[in-house]
Amino acid sequence: MEKIKIFAPASVANVSCGFDVLGFCLDPIGDIMHITKINKPGVVIRNITGEELPKDPLKNVAIVAANSLLESYPTNKGFIIDIEKKIKPGSGIGSSAASAAGSVFAINQLLGKPFTEKELLKFAMDGEAVASGAAHADNLAPVLLGGFTLVRSNSSLDVIKLPTPPDLFATIIHPKIELKTIHSRAILKKEIPLEKAVKQWGNLGAFVSALHTNDYKLLSRSMKDEVIEPFRAMLIPKFNDVRNAAIEAGALGSGISGSGPSIYALSKGENKAIKVGNAMKSFYETIKLDFDIHISCINKEGIKVL
Amino acid sequence: MEKIKIFAPASVANVSCGFDVLGFCLDPIGDIMHITKINKPGVVIRNITGEELPKDPLKNVAIVAANSLLESYPTNKGFIIDIEKKIKPGSGIGSSAASAAGSVFAINQLLGKPFTEKELLKFAMDGEAVASGAAHADNLAPVLLGGFTLVRSNSSLDVIKLPTPPDLFATIIHPKIELKTIHSRAILKKEIPLEKAVKQWGNLGAFVSALHTNDYKLLSRSMKDEVIEPFRAMLIPKFNDVRNAAIEAGALGSGISGSGPSIYALSKGENKAIKVGNAMKSFYETIKLDFDIHISCINKEGIKVL
Repeated sequence: MEKIKIFAPASVANVSCGFDVLGFCLDPIGDIMHITKINKPGVVIRNITGEELPKDPLKNVAIVAANSLLESYPTNKGFIIDIEKKIKPGSGIGSSAASAAGSVFAINQLLGKPFTEKELLKFAMDGEAVASGAAHADNLAPVLLGGFTLVRSNSSLDVIKLPTPPDLFATIIHPKIELKTIHSRAILKKEIPLEKAVKQWGNLGAFVSALHTNDYKLLSRSMKDEVIEPFRAMLIPKFNDVRNAAIEAGALGSGISGSGPSIYALSKGENKAIKVGNAMKSFYETIKLDFDIHISCINKEGIKVL
Repeated sequence: MEKIKIFAPASVANVSCGFDVLGFCLDPIGDIMHITKINKPGVVIRNITGEELPKDPLKNVAIVAANSLLESYPTNKGFIIDIEKKIKPGSGIGSSAASAAGSVFAINQLLGKPFTEKELLKFAMDGEAVASGAAHADNLAPVLLGGFTLVRSNSSLDVIKLPTPPDLFATIIHPKIELKTIHSRAILKKEIPLEKAVKQWGNLGAFVSALHTNDYKLLSRSMKDEVIEPFRAMLIPKFNDVRNAAIEAGALGSGISGSGPSIYALSKGENKAIKVGNAMKSFYETIKLDFDIHISCINKEGIKVL
């Protein structure tokens, strides 16, 4: 019998101009997972603390992801998973991605690392598909690789790790309403104006270049989203107020984290990120809507053994 | 009286995944322009050799661009322009952009450089608008700045110069049919599927990252266009055959140059670019369609005084 304890971090996907492709990894927020290797085949969830999650093998993302890995790597060993769930499901910071990535990352460690982190993506995606209704790598990639990641192709799982400017900090505010990815997808139109698409890819190209050159001003100018945000903003209480307050307080940019309801902002320096958080939360305090707030560096390492 | 002689290079815009935003500058192909400063206000075209172009002040892009600059910089001097036109109008490698950029670049030199290259873009765009029906900076930016350029925003003229991998060479084949930008724009749909837009911006982000890291394989994987190319391909004789032949011969990628009919390919190394050119031209030789072919490094300097 062997045991492993890991940290599976939260993450931000759909970073403004990078819907479905661009994400980054957070640091202090994340799940703790304990995985025990046993001599009886199969994967089971034993304890889940912190949040309610299904233990049904067909609905639990950690089990589905684990079984996907084990299909490619048959073994007579089995795995017991205990989860200290700290990322709230439906909060928009990659709760299911942390579970799916955590499960395959830990099992891969216990099997002697037969797979690379990029290979683990495929298995984790099978788990993620259970939660969000479609298999997307945009939260999984930053969790498994760390830092900023770009999913060039979801179908061929071509994922690139991008550089992280040194002084970048994230502020995350989670207004406590639950919003399922599957619902925030339903609100999107299947066709978008070419003109807006061109603006979006111009901004994404500039954002990627700015990460490579530590150009915070260009980063700021390119953090725009005219394609997705206008639709999803209406699902999030006070979104425009909160976003504008973040920018007025000095954030480089701000937008919906994942499919919401969390709102993220990026700032240069930790003090600025704290100031931005104070500006953002005032709106929820006024309307007495409960919220969580997090300040985080960009987690360059990603998921890790504790 | 002062005279200046300049080289205004050809350029490739709409580089596969970068419709309307991504371009690069060519080297051996370009116009020679002679601009003479005189003591009588006004801008006139004296001689145009090589190609037929309108000398009408409202239709000639060089004059329109020059007048736009002179509106922002009133002077009692005037300018006489002679053009050795070597870039064929309607060929898809920035013929009008070379004229517009050349005119404002040269006049700026003769006025003691009151404007930066980025500032000249605005004036040149007024000229470009006359030729293409809409003001776009995607050919002008690489001509004025050199190398690869990204137009983050056409409206605020936020233009970024991207790095150029050292061994990159372009092959350009121009099948001699004339295709006006205004017509190849008309064939495009105003709305595009979100799914294809996501692929496009994933590819553009990857392309930009690959330029920063000299990752030729990633560059190759990201040179895709499912949004524009399928529509415009039908306007260009044998497009798919020529493009596929380029890739089979070892090109990193190939696509429509600007709005066509020229087809470009990018290759690693000059010898490969020559081999790719031989593969591409065989189709036009077979159907006896006249063509020009060019092999070019990526011109990092851009427009210059000779």
